Amino acid sequence: MSRFASLADFREILKAQPGPDADAARAAAERNAQLTKPPAALGRLEDLARWYASWRGDPRPRLESPQVIVFAGNHGVAARGVSAFPPEVTAQMVANFKAGGAAINQLAGVFGARMDVHALDLDTPTADFTRGPAMSEAEVVAALRTGWEAVDPASDLVVAGEMGIANTTAAAAIAAALYGGGAECWTGRGTGLDDEGLSRKAQVVEEALAANPSRDPLEVLRCLGGRELAAMAGAIARARAERIPVILDGFICTAAAATLEAAQPGALDHAVAGHVSAEAAHAALLERLGKTPLLSLGMRLGEGSGAALAIGVLKGAIACHSGMATFAEAGVSEG
Amino acid sequence: MSRFASLADFREILKAQPGPDADAARAAAERNAQLTKPPAALGRLEDLARWYASWRGDPRPRLESPQVIVFAGNHGVAARGVSAFPPEVTAQMVANFKAGGAAINQLAGVFGARMDVHALDLDTPTADFTRGPAMSEAEVVAALRTGWEAVDPASDLVVAGEMGIANTTAAAAIAAALYGGGAECWTGRGTGLDDEGLSRKAQVVEEALAANPSRDPLEVLRCLGGRELAAMAGAIARARAERIPVILDGFICTAAAATLEAAQPGALDHAVAGHVSAEAAHAALLERLGKTPLLSLGMRLGEGSGAALAIGVLKGAIACHSGMATFAEAGVSEG
Repeated sequence: MSRFASLADFREILKAQPGPDADAARAAAERNAQLTKPPAALGRLEDLARWYASWRGDPRPRLESPQVIVFAGNHGVAARGVSAFPPEVTAQMVANFKAGGAAINQLAGVFGARMDVHALDLDTPTADFTRGPAMSEAEVVAALRTGWEAVDPASDLVVAGEMGIANTTAAAAIAAALYGGGAECWTGRGTGLDDEGLSRKAQVVEEALAANPSRDPLEVLRCLGGRELAAMAGAIARARAERIPVILDGFICTAAAATLEAAQPGALDHAVAGHVSAEAAHAALLERLGKTPLLSLGMRLGEGSGAALAIGVLKGAIACHSGMATFAEAGVSEG
Repeated sequence: MSRFASLADFREILKAQPGPDADAARAAAERNAQLTKPPAALGRLEDLARWYASWRGDPRPRLESPQVIVFAGNHGVAARGVSAFPPEVTAQMVANFKAGGAAINQLAGVFGARMDVHALDLDTPTADFTRGPAMSEAEVVAALRTGWEAVDPASDLVVAGEMGIANTTAAAAIAAALYGGGAECWTGRGTGLDDEGLSRKAQVVEEALAANPSRDPLEVLRCLGGRELAAMAGAIARARAERIPVILDGFICTAAAATLEAAQPGALDHAVAGHVSAEAAHAALLERLGKTPLLSLGMRLGEGSGAALAIGVLKGAIACHSGMATFAEAGVSEG
């Protein structure tokens, strides 16, 4: 059960979240130094393993039960022609997720992840945020709770992905509201807009910023976000409460997550950036968050796909850390 | 059975290697265009899947039997103090590979790869190449044949890795001989040399270049390489003969592979670069080969570790390509 009934409650939860386990971090660093390899020769894999160990509170952790959760929502602003695809594609893709036919199904399968799909009131799009808030407080809290409750406490890794026609427009509006710089800095082609569509999209983001003046991060999520964005934020916060590490996906997931970090600095310390997407604003957003992506493969699909691919990197890092022999165990001379 | 008894024979084999299957490439591209995602939204994963399909001759391929092969060799030049580790570590690490305790064992396990280890005459290091050729023709041919025969024709992906104290010195000498630019451009800290060691290593590479004047690529492999480097070259060539795609590992593997490309342009078309290592010369070498690495995680371990980690990326790419539903199958509207 979620423990919040309002944004004020959720704000309090963010303030009281647990941190990493310093003892496990220390023990993991000691173990890492004894493994049969030159110091630091596994590069970022070593950082990842220590980070994961610190959040799991286990100096020799395993990663066996990753959970991929895809949230879908519809957006009133889609009517403004900001996407290359029509809004009915959201529901069609939800059916595709459930039937196992989407990219994220294949990636979850490759890396042994459980996959859950939550469609959030697809028949009731959020309000067009160029005219006022996308969601009421009750609506955003319901979406946060859907995300919160979607996380299985028995999981040992969470990937939160999304599907929602027009949701790069919401992500651009959130990023612009949190960090400034103007709509054009944060607006990209999404699933494939042409030049005219791109210009219209930037104009729509400017209108949204003007129509929703609050810059409080959780108000930004309510007014400029969407149900699937709020659900991802709820899932990421719940993972923290359960000390489950998170891999962030692309621009939309990262924008949703950024509202948590803006509301409570450090709220994303349990999260790494799985990849940097081809949507140019994603790199800028990751830089603001101080997150270096694990992968850079020109992906821009969403669904959690980039983060799911990065599960393989994290699995590799943890397998090395927890499975390798030490110099003493293997009888190998140290340099 | 290998079909060569001399470097001249091997050179003929390189000239007569098969190319990709154009029909499979075309059919794979057609399939890719129908999958339930915006065009190109999976970025490099789409390129990888089409490339893999073209080499396997199958527009909807599977990747189920990857083979990781680690070759180990000892180098006469190790006596010149060019490594942070003593030469006995090569044999100790071979024992560690066989016991399952090294990083590559864990990574092969995560990605379901078979792993084979071949120690090449560890008790007889190659000659110190600052005084003349590292190997006789009989020795380099024997090493090439070990690599050639190590590849299982039933594998559907090959990763060739290495272990050999002092072998970044051999790789630097090969790169300098093939591409020029002087020893200092290609010489790095390997497993952890200090400034003095680094300066000595560059001097050793200069001496090696002076002592071995031939710049014929296969002579470069014989004179400046080592048994594990020649074995990797033999394995990569055999994979091509069997139409098995290859993921290249770090600087040493790539230097060995570069001798094939220099001997026969296009000889590495069946290979992708798994990662770029922290050994700075690796990035320069990949650029000369026109290969963009899949991963950049600051790894510098060798053993095939960076390439093994990239198996996950390739598995993800192929799973999406071959497993996703088409727009028609899923009833999803195209943009």
